[in-house]
Amino acid sequence: MKIAVDAMGGDYAPEQIVFGAVRAAKKYHCDIVLVGDEQKIRDVLKHENGWENLGITIHHTTEVIEMDEHPAEAVRSKKDSSLVVATRLVKEGECDAVLSAGSTGAAVTAAQLILKRIRGIGRPTIATPIPTPKGATLLLDSGANVDSKPIHLVQSGMMGAIYAEYVFGTKNPKVGLLNIGEEETKGNEQAKETYALLKEMHTINFGGNAEGRDIPKGNFDVVICDGFVGNVVLKFAEGLAKTIMKLIKEAIKDGGVLAKLGALMLMPTLKKLGKRLDASEYGGAPLLGVNGVCIISHGSSNAKSICSAIGVANDYVNGNVLEHIRDALTQEEVLADEGEKK
Amino acid sequence: MKIAVDAMGGDYAPEQIVFGAVRAAKKYHCDIVLVGDEQKIRDVLKHENGWENLGITIHHTTEVIEMDEHPAEAVRSKKDSSLVVATRLVKEGECDAVLSAGSTGAAVTAAQLILKRIRGIGRPTIATPIPTPKGATLLLDSGANVDSKPIHLVQSGMMGAIYAEYVFGTKNPKVGLLNIGEEETKGNEQAKETYALLKEMHTINFGGNAEGRDIPKGNFDVVICDGFVGNVVLKFAEGLAKTIMKLIKEAIKDGGVLAKLGALMLMPTLKKLGKRLDASEYGGAPLLGVNGVCIISHGSSNAKSICSAIGVANDYVNGNVLEHIRDALTQEEVLADEGEKK
Repeated sequence: MKIAVDAMGGDYAPEQIVFGAVRAAKKYHCDIVLVGDEQKIRDVLKHENGWENLGITIHHTTEVIEMDEHPAEAVRSKKDSSLVVATRLVKEGECDAVLSAGSTGAAVTAAQLILKRIRGIGRPTIATPIPTPKGATLLLDSGANVDSKPIHLVQSGMMGAIYAEYVFGTKNPKVGLLNIGEEETKGNEQAKETYALLKEMHTINFGGNAEGRDIPKGNFDVVICDGFVGNVVLKFAEGLAKTIMKLIKEAIKDGGVLAKLGALMLMPTLKKLGKRLDASEYGGAPLLGVNGVCIISHGSSNAKSICSAIGVANDYVNGNVLEHIRDALTQEEVLADEGEKK
Repeated sequence: MKIAVDAMGGDYAPEQIVFGAVRAAKKYHCDIVLVGDEQKIRDVLKHENGWENLGITIHHTTEVIEMDEHPAEAVRSKKDSSLVVATRLVKEGECDAVLSAGSTGAAVTAAQLILKRIRGIGRPTIATPIPTPKGATLLLDSGANVDSKPIHLVQSGMMGAIYAEYVFGTKNPKVGLLNIGEEETKGNEQAKETYALLKEMHTINFGGNAEGRDIPKGNFDVVICDGFVGNVVLKFAEGLAKTIMKLIKEAIKDGGVLAKLGALMLMPTLKKLGKRLDASEYGGAPLLGVNGVCIISHGSSNAKSICSAIGVANDYVNGNVLEHIRDALTQEEVLADEGEKK
């Protein structure tokens, strides 16, 4: 197992990326290729005693794709960027997976242009695990594409279910269609058409419409939606969690001695709960639908998240997810996007 | 001021609706017409000493629209339902506003069919106040319509800004377009076209794209989106809040004596914060764009929420919101939906 890590992508790159990679190399005993500016990577690595004895190598690159660059232009013009080279290492069979915490748009574009889509898949999709009391719900598409066709949402459902089954170990995962009501007749045109297609699928355990509240409650294993909606929901959740934490801290600060003491006593319990709901435990979101394992990490990833994400990459490879997706497409012809069959 | 209240709509109707109305009559000194089954309403009112001295009257009706009925069919066929009659009381000038905690779809439909849309407005829109550290952000449309045209989103922005200004007292409210990135070029077709229109408006203080995280942070006074997205976000927030509360309670229960004692000491502080973030303090969401004041309350509304909602109805009437909306449409011609001009 060898993972290509974009060492230059992310708000805390290269430090946190490199530290995370070292941690993962120890934890998962996998080989890691750190792709990026060799000198900068070495400057971080020198703080890690004995890293030379782990399976870590450096692949030097001279360019970096910035967060605000146009994804397609950047990927096309910066041939020697850490992201493009890391993705190419997977294409060329040098590595089993690529991971980046840089621009999501650029990572999706690089995967599409270099790894190419799986034959029959119309659009790749980002599957983000949302922690719930029952484990995690996979939300997809969480931002790779907008204005998707119903068949793309159906394909998301199929790919998400395969991922949930072979990576999370969920048997016969229940797939829900994100909608604004439970009834079949509810929703926008996209949702109504997708519902009609999903009903006919034999390879997908379709559980009907999921409402917004079903996501945090964990009522479905997989929830599918357009990337516009998925992205809004994810960022809303992120903002809400941060805002509530900030307000609780302020309230405790203003709450006097009793509140402060109470908070102190309650802290271990809340920390345990926080850990259970911490999205960074999942580290990264798989991009599904391309010919290669690609993990997209949050821009604000720290070493711990990167380490978890490398664990996710391992599981994704070991789950043979790509083969299972190709299989599903041959098993159920109607699943393939007409325009994408060759 | 006289408010027509659908006494039969809502999960806890008629009890909580009637209790809320009594509370509001005392608090706001307004007249209230309780519309619904007279005997059932009297059975609740008999628990309220001296209600006869408040400005409360009963308007008897024989039918009720249930939550699972098809909105348009139900409104058309059940002429003597509490919702239809309450809405008609506004149309006929008997009441200044109507309030219902029953089926949202039916309330929107009744308002459209009976009160009619304001000339030039293509679609009515539900404006839901979301509590934030800075006060409240008005999210609209939160579920009245899906697959809206860009001009409808622009009209939502205009109406939301007027509501924020004349009801909340926010000067020159900042309007954001819910999108998946800050840049003008981001988003789906609907968002991109809406952005282009908003840029040209003189009567709207357009602050650019708002991302999901901007809603809970309170970075905009008004956030506009398609009703599909708004409804998903609202229900997601509701589910997330409930799930977190449940998990915290469970964690405290399992956390031993120290955790329990800590929770007890922290409780007054958290309760104060909870009150600040409690959506029921806002009680109801105004439906904007119809010729009459209409407030839509959550199905699970209790007496406190209904009382707040009646307060909202008062403010909505006193703010002369409808006149200001009509004014804005004449001030800026391009704001009107071409198909809706007469």
